[in-house]
Amino acid sequence: MKQSRFEPSEAVLSGETADIYFARTLEILRKEGLNPVATMEVFANDAGILCGIEEAKALLEKVLPQNNREVWALREGERMESKEVVLRITAPYQSYGLYETAVDGMLSHCSGWATAARECVEAAGKIPVISFGARHVHPSVAGVMDYATMVGGCAGCSSIAGARLSGTEPVGTIPHALILVMGDTVTATAAFDKHMPSGAPRVSLVDTFKDEVEESLRVARALGKRLESVRLDTPGERGRVTADLVKEVRAWLDLEGFNWVKIFVSGGINPERITYFLESGAKVDGFGVGSYISDAKPIDFTADLHEVDGRPIAKRGRLPGITRNPRLERVM
Amino acid sequence: MKQSRFEPSEAVLSGETADIYFARTLEILRKEGLNPVATMEVFANDAGILCGIEEAKALLEKVLPQNNREVWALREGERMESKEVVLRITAPYQSYGLYETAVDGMLSHCSGWATAARECVEAAGKIPVISFGARHVHPSVAGVMDYATMVGGCAGCSSIAGARLSGTEPVGTIPHALILVMGDTVTATAAFDKHMPSGAPRVSLVDTFKDEVEESLRVARALGKRLESVRLDTPGERGRVTADLVKEVRAWLDLEGFNWVKIFVSGGINPERITYFLESGAKVDGFGVGSYISDAKPIDFTADLHEVDGRPIAKRGRLPGITRNPRLERVM
Amino acid sequence: MKQSRFEPSEAVLSGETADIYFARTLEILRKEGLNPVATMEVFANDAGILCGIEEAKALLEKVLPQNNREVWALREGERMESKEVVLRITAPYQSYGLYETAVDGMLSHCSGWATAARECVEAAGKIPVISFGARHVHPSVAGVMDYATMVGGCAGCSSIAGARLSGTEPVGTIPHALILVMGDTVTATAAFDKHMPSGAPRVSLVDTFKDEVEESLRVARALGKRLESVRLDTPGERGRVTADLVKEVRAWLDLEGFNWVKIFVSGGINPERITYFLESGAKVDGFGVGSYISDAKPIDFTADLHEVDGRPIAKRGRLPGITRNPRLERVM
Amino acid sequence: MKQSRFEPSEAVLSGETADIYFARTLEILRKEGLNPVATMEVFANDAGILCGIEEAKALLEKVLPQNNREVWALREGERMESKEVVLRITAPYQSYGLYETAVDGMLSHCSGWATAARECVEAAGKIPVISFGARHVHPSVAGVMDYATMVGGCAGCSSIAGARLSGTEPVGTIPHALILVMGDTVTATAAFDKHMPSGAPRVSLVDTFKDEVEESLRVARALGKRLESVRLDTPGERGRVTADLVKEVRAWLDLEGFNWVKIFVSGGINPERITYFLESGAKVDGFGVGSYISDAKPIDFTADLHEVDGRPIAKRGRLPGITRNPRLERVM
Amino acid sequence: MKQSRFEPSEAVLSGETADIYFARTLEILRKEGLNPVATMEVFANDAGILCGIEEAKALLEKVLPQNNREVWALREGERMESKEVVLRITAPYQSYGLYETAVDGMLSHCSGWATAARECVEAAGKIPVISFGARHVHPSVAGVMDYATMVGGCAGCSSIAGARLSGTEPVGTIPHALILVMGDTVTATAAFDKHMPSGAPRVSLVDTFKDEVEESLRVARALGKRLESVRLDTPGERGRVTADLVKEVRAWLDLEGFNWVKIFVSGGINPERITYFLESGAKVDGFGVGSYISDAKPIDFTADLHEVDGRPIAKRGRLPGITRNPRLERVM
Amino acid sequence: MKQSRFEPSEAVLSGETADIYFARTLEILRKEGLNPVATMEVFANDAGILCGIEEAKALLEKVLPQNNREVWALREGERMESKEVVLRITAPYQSYGLYETAVDGMLSHCSGWATAARECVEAAGKIPVISFGARHVHPSVAGVMDYATMVGGCAGCSSIAGARLSGTEPVGTIPHALILVMGDTVTATAAFDKHMPSGAPRVSLVDTFKDEVEESLRVARALGKRLESVRLDTPGERGRVTADLVKEVRAWLDLEGFNWVKIFVSGGINPERITYFLESGAKVDGFGVGSYISDAKPIDFTADLHEVDGRPIAKRGRLPGITRNPRLERVM
Repeated sequence: MKQSRFEPSEAVLSGETADIYFARTLEILRKEGLNPVATMEVFANDAGILCGIEEAKALLEKVLPQNNREVWALREGERMESKEVVLRITAPYQSYGLYETAVDGMLSHCSGWATAARECVEAAGKIPVISFGARHVHPSVAGVMDYATMVGGCAGCSSIAGARLSGTEPVGTIPHALILVMGDTVTATAAFDKHMPSGAPRVSLVDTFKDEVEESLRVARALGKRLESVRLDTPGERGRVTADLVKEVRAWLDLEGFNWVKIFVSGGINPERITYFLESGAKVDGFGVGSYISDAKPIDFTADLHEVDGRPIAKRGRLPGITRNPRLERVM
Repeated sequence: MKQSRFEPSEAVLSGETADIYFARTLEILRKEGLNPVATMEVFANDAGILCGIEEAKALLEKVLPQNNREVWALREGERMESKEVVLRITAPYQSYGLYETAVDGMLSHCSGWATAARECVEAAGKIPVISFGARHVHPSVAGVMDYATMVGGCAGCSSIAGARLSGTEPVGTIPHALILVMGDTVTATAAFDKHMPSGAPRVSLVDTFKDEVEESLRVARALGKRLESVRLDTPGERGRVTADLVKEVRAWLDLEGFNWVKIFVSGGINPERITYFLESGAKVDGFGVGSYISDAKPIDFTADLHEVDGRPIAKRGRLPGITRNPRLERVM
Repeated sequence: MKQSRFEPSEAVLSGETADIYFARTLEILRKEGLNPVATMEVFANDAGILCGIEEAKALLEKVLPQNNREVWALREGERMESKEVVLRITAPYQSYGLYETAVDGMLSHCSGWATAARECVEAAGKIPVISFGARHVHPSVAGVMDYATMVGGCAGCSSIAGARLSGTEPVGTIPHALILVMGDTVTATAAFDKHMPSGAPRVSLVDTFKDEVEESLRVARALGKRLESVRLDTPGERGRVTADLVKEVRAWLDLEGFNWVKIFVSGGINPERITYFLESGAKVDGFGVGSYISDAKPIDFTADLHEVDGRPIAKRGRLPGITRNPRLERVM
Repeated sequence: MKQSRFEPSEAVLSGETADIYFARTLEILRKEGLNPVATMEVFANDAGILCGIEEAKALLEKVLPQNNREVWALREGERMESKEVVLRITAPYQSYGLYETAVDGMLSHCSGWATAARECVEAAGKIPVISFGARHVHPSVAGVMDYATMVGGCAGCSSIAGARLSGTEPVGTIPHALILVMGDTVTATAAFDKHMPSGAPRVSLVDTFKDEVEESLRVARALGKRLESVRLDTPGERGRVTADLVKEVRAWLDLEGFNWVKIFVSGGINPERITYFLESGAKVDGFGVGSYISDAKPIDFTADLHEVDGRPIAKRGRLPGITRNPRLERVM
Repeated sequence: MKQSRFEPSEAVLSGETADIYFARTLEILRKEGLNPVATMEVFANDAGILCGIEEAKALLEKVLPQNNREVWALREGERMESKEVVLRITAPYQSYGLYETAVDGMLSHCSGWATAARECVEAAGKIPVISFGARHVHPSVAGVMDYATMVGGCAGCSSIAGARLSGTEPVGTIPHALILVMGDTVTATAAFDKHMPSGAPRVSLVDTFKDEVEESLRVARALGKRLESVRLDTPGERGRVTADLVKEVRAWLDLEGFNWVKIFVSGGINPERITYFLESGAKVDGFGVGSYISDAKPIDFTADLHEVDGRPIAKRGRLPGITRNPRLERVM
Repeated sequence: MKQSRFEPSEAVLSGETADIYFARTLEILRKEGLNPVATMEVFANDAGILCGIEEAKALLEKVLPQNNREVWALREGERMESKEVVLRITAPYQSYGLYETAVDGMLSHCSGWATAARECVEAAGKIPVISFGARHVHPSVAGVMDYATMVGGCAGCSSIAGARLSGTEPVGTIPHALILVMGDTVTATAAFDKHMPSGAPRVSLVDTFKDEVEESLRVARALGKRLESVRLDTPGERGRVTADLVKEVRAWLDLEGFNWVKIFVSGGINPERITYFLESGAKVDGFGVGSYISDAKPIDFTADLHEVDGRPIAKRGRLPGITRNPRLERVM
């Protein structure tokens, strides 16, 4: 991925999204004529997967003076330790003081998503994990959320914005709404097959009206070799998808000879649930994960000044001076 | 608050933030020439405070045909039950199908924040709660996050965007950075006092360099009657703010006659912690809450079709036909 | 119920089912010429519903000398306290010593079953509970087990032997086997309807091949007013019967006008589960309980001698002499 | 053991102990003229020791047509896995459909007992375990219960019926009742010694009237070399048998030179308690186990049809067709 | 009780038992010529029963200058709250600084014992509690420990020193050693009866050699009306004293007409155990408590200076100036 | 250490600290003319570090007849197992019977303290642990308590009496009281430096008035190379000493070049807390432990007679005769 995908918004650049006290600080410093070169270090309060650093760099690139700046950082997607410094900025304080809120926020929210995604991906091993969580977050962050899931290792994401940010194709099947509007799973799947480009995989959703086994066999009989997968998304009211259901659908598909049809599972999936499916011996070919990733808690980041005009300094509770971290690379 | 504050973004209107399968569904239905009037109901999976409905309505207002629509909803800030229908849309399906992702996302994320804010506000009783969490969320949602905290009952928020959306003034004190750059708490507070408009309350942050009691007395002696409050934000490395610290600062301020100076507490505040302060007898005059609210899990919402062309219908696991809810009001 | 239903078997009367040391004791006492009048008291180690006392009395009636006996007991189905004496026998010891094993066993096993049944019945309130557990116990006790469930308050039981012992008609629906052999739920239900006496209620089992909602509607359309109920028995592999499934089946039956058709639920039912259904608001019309009752632990009973030849006596750990219990009634 | 020990009772053969719906199924199938060859598989819901299969085979031998049957099974006493098929019957359905209740019941109840017995036997290592639980079960199953404990590995059982079924001699000591009737432990033990055949081991029960140490020494002094063991059965009211009590009795017996006298322990014994004694270093020579084995929960078995007329079939939740299990052996 | 019972030891007065840094502090202050009037307040870190204040006052009486002192205190045996000031001393600092260790120590250790004693006494209601714990503490504090148990509400104590300090008679029965030396419980009890003054109650210990019931009856038969009680002290190796044992001894004593003989229980007694006996319905006439009281944790006390030369002062973490407590009384 | 340090007090020798029933026993035995040679064994109910045996031996040396005694014991400071015999006395019973209370008490209390000290010492590894707990125990045992901590492995103790008993120098810093009286930490430390002998290490207490970092730097600047350490003792009201505080003080001291100044930590220290500091990477140079050691529960010891006049004997629950323990050494 290239960092140029991220473009700081006018709201961020203007300080609109900042805490008011940073705006006031700038005003005071300007009036006092103070603009020392200061070093700010940013660290996460918990271990995880670093994400958002590309977007933060795109912002800093815009605001730091090119002839008086030094920026060190870890890379997007790297594992970071708790309290490890992941970003160090040395520049005149007035050039970046206003953006502490934004930089912290980008890193906090995106690292939270990427870390949760990585947990699912690691639980799933070689089985692909797709992010389906756009519906649980505000649309203004649906794209960066899905971008972060891709940084975390997902094989695809459902939102168009997320796919664009991560330079991939969005991934999806058929919503229940289409089947409900058309009145029958086979009809809806056939319409999808008729109108969609041949490159889009035919994945039928088989829990809308009839028993999952019956629907799976009906769509398999209707589409034959063109059916790529069936998706099981049985709701909690119906006992959600169980490992035994996967085995049963697999057994009937095989019994009728549809051994090429894959089984994709969604609905309440998380690492624990993924492990349950894997340990049960059920043959799942893909997992769709929603709220476990999209609703993940942000990993809070903290930014502290450690040097002002070359003098080591710190607020109480932090150590004075630059924090050594050989993993950092100079990026500006 | 007036709903006109919310303006659907181009990214939302274009479907850019939607799940790809809704875009495909529209394309299929258009090619099939199907556009039935359909009723979609939206409910939350958990109880809480409804928020985001104003923003959702602003979107629907833009996209639903004025002569063929009926929308019912609960009001922004109302308490909703688990599984209770909070929004019901009846209109030609093609007009709104694409926006299921966005509507769910607005409600999910904002209701999560508003609910967490309400918990803090209820724990604090008459003591004001200020939202300080903008730094923990992506800047694209810093504004709506803080707006939701105000819907939840907060007395103020720190982000400029959040204040604008909620029609209030942003609230803040002094960041540690200003004190670190200026080298002394009294110097920094005096500079604030000198340069800021007289309407902005003088709130000094007293845990940066010296003992909190000592700093409180120093700034009180320096600013006298102009000092409105001191803010205690002792970090976890130093045992964070305890009820005993509040009592001790209060005792010394009173001993020297500064009984008008208020004490504002921040750092790891949540409902449990608020209750701890209240039950301890420590006299706290305000709480600043950050990650407990900003990092709150979204409350997942689900949208289902319940009628198509006047026919009751449902996917498995849901009940067919309109769900009765006398609390709903017709809003379009 | 009349106690004459119970007839001691030859195996019991001969001492074949006794512990060997009671047989040896009799032989020693006979050789020593000792046959004192002795008082034995029997109590349960845990509280519960007394059951088996009728069968025990039928045995004692046979073996105690009519002119030298005094027997006091609680009644079948009464609640007994932990350690409460429920049976007191005074007679020449040789006449009953051999039957301590059998009397303890009848009371232990039957009271365990009756107590578990009572728990279900109390949880279910006015909704009838049917015992379906014959398949989990050895066929030699299938009858007494089901008899005990009736003593505990069940409205019916499935085993022919249990129904006979309790003077009722056996209760049942259709097994999965019939549907599997006939190949379709509607066909099997129609065959039942055709061949069974008109008095036997038509209860169709609707989880064998297709979705429960679909099958319920199919059998309702086929049998119309003759259909009494549908039975939901969804297996654990499919998420077992949920309250939401009951509501969904009810909603669809009502939507199509089949409001007379009842819903009967089975599969893993126990008091906790019954409470879950009741609290959910799902309208269940009957519960079938299997292993919770049939697999209930016996409530262990203990028999002790407390007087020999009119002298108070006791083994260590027990109190000498007759134990006062005003609830006992003289039965022989 | 030879299977001929089991003889199906008339109550089982007549269907008296069956669930009513199997009787009705047979009637319907006969009236419809349907009697397909069907394959039924039986599996346990939990792992354990298989028991009851000999009795089930004795029943099937009687009812299946000799020229049209195929039966595969695991062996009595083998360890079975959860969900493992332990019995597969292929025959005309009408010949065995009525006996599903009985076969399930035999396997469920007996496997429960055998599994609990095995747990005690494994905990005890080389120290023999005797089944004393006949008094906790209905006399109609006292024999099969004790038979199952022998299949589970017990070295003896106390019921005469259980010993007969398992082809062994019943095992027992002296009941408290004999001592209470005769008034003294030494007197009762001496009477036992005088009247019982020389082959029956002299085991005195030493907790009835006096301190266990004192009684042990008294009977040892009275019987000398003829005393085989003392049995400690101290009741819960007196702190039950502790490891320290065993050590104390051992020390005093040895101090007076009675080193041949063994110590047998009973009362609330279970695997955890057995391990406690072994780990304490107390020298126990035998354990008597009652309710832990006799009150064990049945291990529920389930029977399903998997083929009808050669066609793979299954109810929802189960897999269609024959289940592979290479451990099965053809037995008919 | 009169405080004159306490006489400060030479070791305390000389500072021998003090922390070295208080001795050094005195030396420094003397060399610097500093001896301001200072106010020290003492509080407990946990709630409980105040004890040791009489001994502390006896010390202060000796060391504070009579013309320049003011001492306020709660009373011996009063309930104190956590953090409540229980002692306030105003006097020239050099006169008492050295004794902070001793005063804290007296209060800490004695209040710990008195509080534990009170818990037992409250659990026991009207039944007397006797302190038997002298053997668990160093003999140098056996007396003050037992004194504290009396302050806590015990009806008696076993150590001679404790009885003297509390102005009572020591209480005791017979040790196991006497019975072991004399070889028989009845012999030993008879010797006690023969040689001890008639005022000393005859309490026999009945668990040494034989069963407790048997021994109780033997001593009752031997001493008749002169026997006041039997003491049950069954050790843990024998299942310790159970409520059922008490009931059994009571029943046999009553059966033989010894209804005047009381039952005294000891061995592992604590408030939970006392409650167990009371709730069981067993008639216990006295409890002997050992390690629960004697091994109780000290309740730590802290002493802080709050005024020096009339100026409010405090170390960080404490509040400056005198702490208001209207419960304090002036004692010097 | 030499045992001669311990001298039995008159109160112990006179039996004043004994349980009254031992005094009575002696009187009875004298009147009966019974004084058999008896063997008493003493064991601990829990494992731990044996302490108090030297003091017990000093007592026995005084009271046992030199020509008729045999005493075996483990050594002071050795690890003992639960129930292991640590002391065996064979002598005429009248010579020592009265001292059972005292011997048990010395061993119980001292072993409790030594064991707790050892836990801290083992947790701290090479970092010295100092006992600061004298203020939590009665002054009559402050010395033996501190002696026991030295037996347990502490590097020093604060009480003068404890140091004398263990043949060491008492260890201490400066109390808060001195700083409060003198009004400033630097002034107080300088006064200490001026008046105390040059051999006493200069250890400043840096949490009284100002921030710990600020005070540390102030005293370091004032005393320079003469400052040995700073002691951190931050109270719980201020979040107590955290590992991060240690790191912060270390960082600032090093930044200003005071790398020779050590950091000593006290306040709520226990093994768990020591481990927390060690695992955090904070460089602590010494731990001061108070109540964890001083408030440790006594380890209860029990004394039993096992032989009288050469005859093996025991009370119920104990084994008759001498208990083998090859670790014992003959000491008298």
